[in-house]
Amino acid sequence: MQKYFITESELINKKIVSDDVFHIKNVMRYVPGDLVIVSDGVSEYLVTLLEVEKKYVTFSLKEAIDNQNELPFFVDIYQGYPKGDKLDDICKHSTELGVRSLYAVFTKRSIVKLDKDRFDTKIERYNKIMKEASEQSNRKRKATFGGIYKLRDIDFSHYDYKILCFEESAKNNEETMFKSILKKVEKGQSICIFIGPEGGIDMTEVEYLNSIGFINVGLGPRILRTETASLYVLSAISYESELK
Amino acid sequence: MQKYFITESELINKKIVSDDVFHIKNVMRYVPGDLVIVSDGVSEYLVTLLEVEKKYVTFSLKEAIDNQNELPFFVDIYQGYPKGDKLDDICKHSTELGVRSLYAVFTKRSIVKLDKDRFDTKIERYNKIMKEASEQSNRKRKATFGGIYKLRDIDFSHYDYKILCFEESAKNNEETMFKSILKKVEKGQSICIFIGPEGGIDMTEVEYLNSIGFINVGLGPRILRTETASLYVLSAISYESELK
Repeated sequence: MQKYFITESELINKKIVSDDVFHIKNVMRYVPGDLVIVSDGVSEYLVTLLEVEKKYVTFSLKEAIDNQNELPFFVDIYQGYPKGDKLDDICKHSTELGVRSLYAVFTKRSIVKLDKDRFDTKIERYNKIMKEASEQSNRKRKATFGGIYKLRDIDFSHYDYKILCFEESAKNNEETMFKSILKKVEKGQSICIFIGPEGGIDMTEVEYLNSIGFINVGLGPRILRTETASLYVLSAISYESELK
Repeated sequence: MQKYFITESELINKKIVSDDVFHIKNVMRYVPGDLVIVSDGVSEYLVTLLEVEKKYVTFSLKEAIDNQNELPFFVDIYQGYPKGDKLDDICKHSTELGVRSLYAVFTKRSIVKLDKDRFDTKIERYNKIMKEASEQSNRKRKATFGGIYKLRDIDFSHYDYKILCFEESAKNNEETMFKSILKKVEKGQSICIFIGPEGGIDMTEVEYLNSIGFINVGLGPRILRTETASLYVLSAISYESELK
């Protein structure tokens, strides 16, 4: 069933006024009486649509839904800004796989040059993709795009665990760190994962990340593309923590 | 370093005569004396290029390379034929993640209609993508595209384990089967994974697959797109069997 992430005030007022109105009325062509699911990321309900107007949609609550579809701990991905439209796909797939927030990071070897004026448009676009993927994959919470930063401007100090996916570690048969960290993370803790862009990450940056507590991990013996690494990490986290 | 999968006879004759000649001469612009890696999927060598001509490239062996970058067991994916160019991405990423062979399958709910006349062109295209991804990800063996089939025409009897990724299992909190099977698979055994197309798989097909030994597994509580499921499965297999 179609799900919409709405704001807390929309939920309190039982009235949707965002872009979702267009989706409800013109894309899905819902009419009064149809059922959808709404969530503010905390509470989730099956609701009956009452009025479906051009500017707003009202609804009544039918029943509460117990949705626990979140990873047991918080995972944020810091992704070296990749070429082309790869970040669109990373936004989409990492959301399906349970990321809390995704950040794009410019590093020394970043190939993409992005005008600061375009940041807002890009951030809005990535957040829209992640909202829709959160709805489609039936997340409890809406995953978010956290912004576009230079590596040295980011404060990583609040994370319980910090992981750097490092190709050289993989080449040197480093195959124990990732699993041993995942086995230690406890429910409610937070973990951040740094993944370099296509050209990899510069050694001075590796040293910097290590100096602030990042642990280098290998993700198996094959060389993964940058857009595959985040999916590997999140799939492995789900496999380790959600399957029994 | 650039790697090329070549045929056994090319390796014996130390002479490349395939499309790779164009790549070596015109894309990479290699000249005599340059080093590349060649492999026939069994033996792998660092080689020195001798002649770089329009129709052929000759080389001399410099040293043998010990490449063990394969999953400890054989994993074949049977993917419900997806829409658009998603199969291109699945070919690419599943190869990076260690698949042996990928097959595309038409099921009852397949949306894609493909003319049989176009099968050969498509199969050639997918094999090319998987060859290049095998080289890029530094696989020991070249992953292959196994063909396009109707579900009921496929013989699955030679696999040691048969897994059906089933959304309804995930919805019903089935969270033990996938991991318990992976923990049983032994080195050298074979496992096949069936993943439905966008619309999911019809109940009569689920029953058919169950009747020939497929076990339904859930892949965590969130709803995964068809193109994400194969990456989840392969990442989890690598995490379970290659990381320690």
